[in-house]
Amino acid sequence: MDRTTVGYDKLRGYMQRMFEVGLKYPRESAEITAEVLVEADARGHASHGVARVSMYANEVWDGKNIPEARPEIVHETPISLVVQGNRAPGFPVSKMAMDRTLEKAEQNGTCMTVVRDSCHFGMAGYWAELAADRGMIGWAFTNTLRAAIPLFGKERLLGTNPICVAIPIGRKPHFMLDMATTTVALGKIEVAARRGGTMPVGWAVDEKGVDTTDAISVADINRKNKSPYGGQLYLGGATETHGGHKGYGLGLLVELLTSGLSMGTPSFETYGDGCGICHCFQVMRMDLFGDARAVQRHVSEILDRIRSSPKAEGQERIYIHGEKEFERREKALKEGIWLDPATWKRLDEYADKFGVEHLEP
Amino acid sequence: MDRTTVGYDKLRGYMQRMFEVGLKYPRESAEITAEVLVEADARGHASHGVARVSMYANEVWDGKNIPEARPEIVHETPISLVVQGNRAPGFPVSKMAMDRTLEKAEQNGTCMTVVRDSCHFGMAGYWAELAADRGMIGWAFTNTLRAAIPLFGKERLLGTNPICVAIPIGRKPHFMLDMATTTVALGKIEVAARRGGTMPVGWAVDEKGVDTTDAISVADINRKNKSPYGGQLYLGGATETHGGHKGYGLGLLVELLTSGLSMGTPSFETYGDGCGICHCFQVMRMDLFGDARAVQRHVSEILDRIRSSPKAEGQERIYIHGEKEFERREKALKEGIWLDPATWKRLDEYADKFGVEHLEP
Repeated sequence: MDRTTVGYDKLRGYMQRMFEVGLKYPRESAEITAEVLVEADARGHASHGVARVSMYANEVWDGKNIPEARPEIVHETPISLVVQGNRAPGFPVSKMAMDRTLEKAEQNGTCMTVVRDSCHFGMAGYWAELAADRGMIGWAFTNTLRAAIPLFGKERLLGTNPICVAIPIGRKPHFMLDMATTTVALGKIEVAARRGGTMPVGWAVDEKGVDTTDAISVADINRKNKSPYGGQLYLGGATETHGGHKGYGLGLLVELLTSGLSMGTPSFETYGDGCGICHCFQVMRMDLFGDARAVQRHVSEILDRIRSSPKAEGQERIYIHGEKEFERREKALKEGIWLDPATWKRLDEYADKFGVEHLEP
Repeated sequence: MDRTTVGYDKLRGYMQRMFEVGLKYPRESAEITAEVLVEADARGHASHGVARVSMYANEVWDGKNIPEARPEIVHETPISLVVQGNRAPGFPVSKMAMDRTLEKAEQNGTCMTVVRDSCHFGMAGYWAELAADRGMIGWAFTNTLRAAIPLFGKERLLGTNPICVAIPIGRKPHFMLDMATTTVALGKIEVAARRGGTMPVGWAVDEKGVDTTDAISVADINRKNKSPYGGQLYLGGATETHGGHKGYGLGLLVELLTSGLSMGTPSFETYGDGCGICHCFQVMRMDLFGDARAVQRHVSEILDRIRSSPKAEGQERIYIHGEKEFERREKALKEGIWLDPATWKRLDEYADKFGVEHLEP
């Protein structure tokens, strides 16, 4: 029996059951959680996919993530919201926050929303895309567990702090930038650790704050949180020569937009009593800038010009952000979602813990 | 006679006279132009300072920058503006746009403004800081002349496309990130060209789109625009290994926020009949998120924690963005602004062309 792919709907239904039965998520919370995780796998971002069930389970069992908790709006203006997550899972918190944000933006032109005391919300792109699907520009930011080093520092204080922006262009895929501000995702360092143990300079520093290629140590430090020192670098690395101060600036900006503006928990204090994760969303209507369809057409033409420009030696394609993920998703909807053997094994393991039947392809 | 420093007010007055007498800028346009240029020199960013008088003069003489032209508002909602620059200089265009943006944000909570058919507006930080000086968050973006390569491409299509964000924290300096999305400013490549001719891998590619360390060729290509191929790289360089797709994504995002949303001229078509430069500004009140002073205090405490954290081996200080520039400016206000010999020479040369007396220290 081929255990490598599974249909989108089947996987989504199964994951919903896992969260409902195994972790006592309310129905709607399980639904949105399953959807966002399965979307990540469908788009080829397994690092944010169903394999994360283990992380969420541990958070629930540790009392940091409280499935039955309900987020609440604690401050509101016609164009802004502050949401207190009350340790509820990041998915229903973000769904509630974005539903209200979209509604307010549709009514009033824009809405900026900050969220505190939430948990991990999966891939940032899912949330920004909700706006683009309704013809609006969407921004999503989040802080994370402490993972990265401020430039010239050695203490792991900030998160991988992603930036996501989705701009609709009249047809799918939207322009969709979804990037951790660190050079690479932690998952890439873990892969390097498994495959020989070295990684390129510029991904991380050791406990002295010095560039290192030792992926095994860094993966170990980050995952096990053994020492407060050493960790990932931001885009541009450990020196100003390649713009390390810029990447660090972007990571810090995301920290201030999320934990700063929400009066929430900075990355360096997350995963104390609660997860303490903070998000920031902004949605803006395109007709703020005139005829929305004409603006979208103009944006689309700029992208066409770039896409069709001559390629560098040895390259065959210039990508616009969002295209790769869109194409993988289309393929996954037809051919099924590919899950690697480690993910199948983990799902079986948690199915046993949860008292749920194993997933069948 | 020491010709290296000059007082802030004296230099500002002198530059105002240069633009008024030499290029027939209306009084108010000359004032704001002089102020923004002198501010850049005071902060140590000579690349955006008074030495640029030659660039502005050439634009005026070529008819791309029309000093007496007036910008106009072509679309407006309570929280947004679209400004048509009508080829007026970028400084008075941006001043008019920001004054209205600040006013609307103070009244309605936020304002997003896009500007087309403007000219170079100097350092982005000046504009974002106007918001922070009034207790609000300010964003400023601009496209530029074509200078940079989309990842896997070889045609110079996009600009150095800076991102600037200023967040007030209750006292100066504000948190102020002001960064070109390219790895380095073109100025750094020119310095490398003068000092031996090589630069690090990751700054630029040659006409085939391949990594190059030949600073002389790249400086030549960019300045003289001899070939459409070869040019600067975005943060992260020419490969995905170090996040080149992220830097390219940020540069492209800035292009879409500026020329895209304003229906203006993309970087790859700037400096045709007019300069064609496009900007984007956003201002948001901090009380959108509750008690503005409490939010600022919380942001400030996050920065304190980072600033005081242990330093990497060999490092003495962790900077928060905006500190270096603030300290240099304080020093310049006391001790005068340092101008290098080439800048003095250029000012004398243009003073002669303009029929203005030479600047005396």
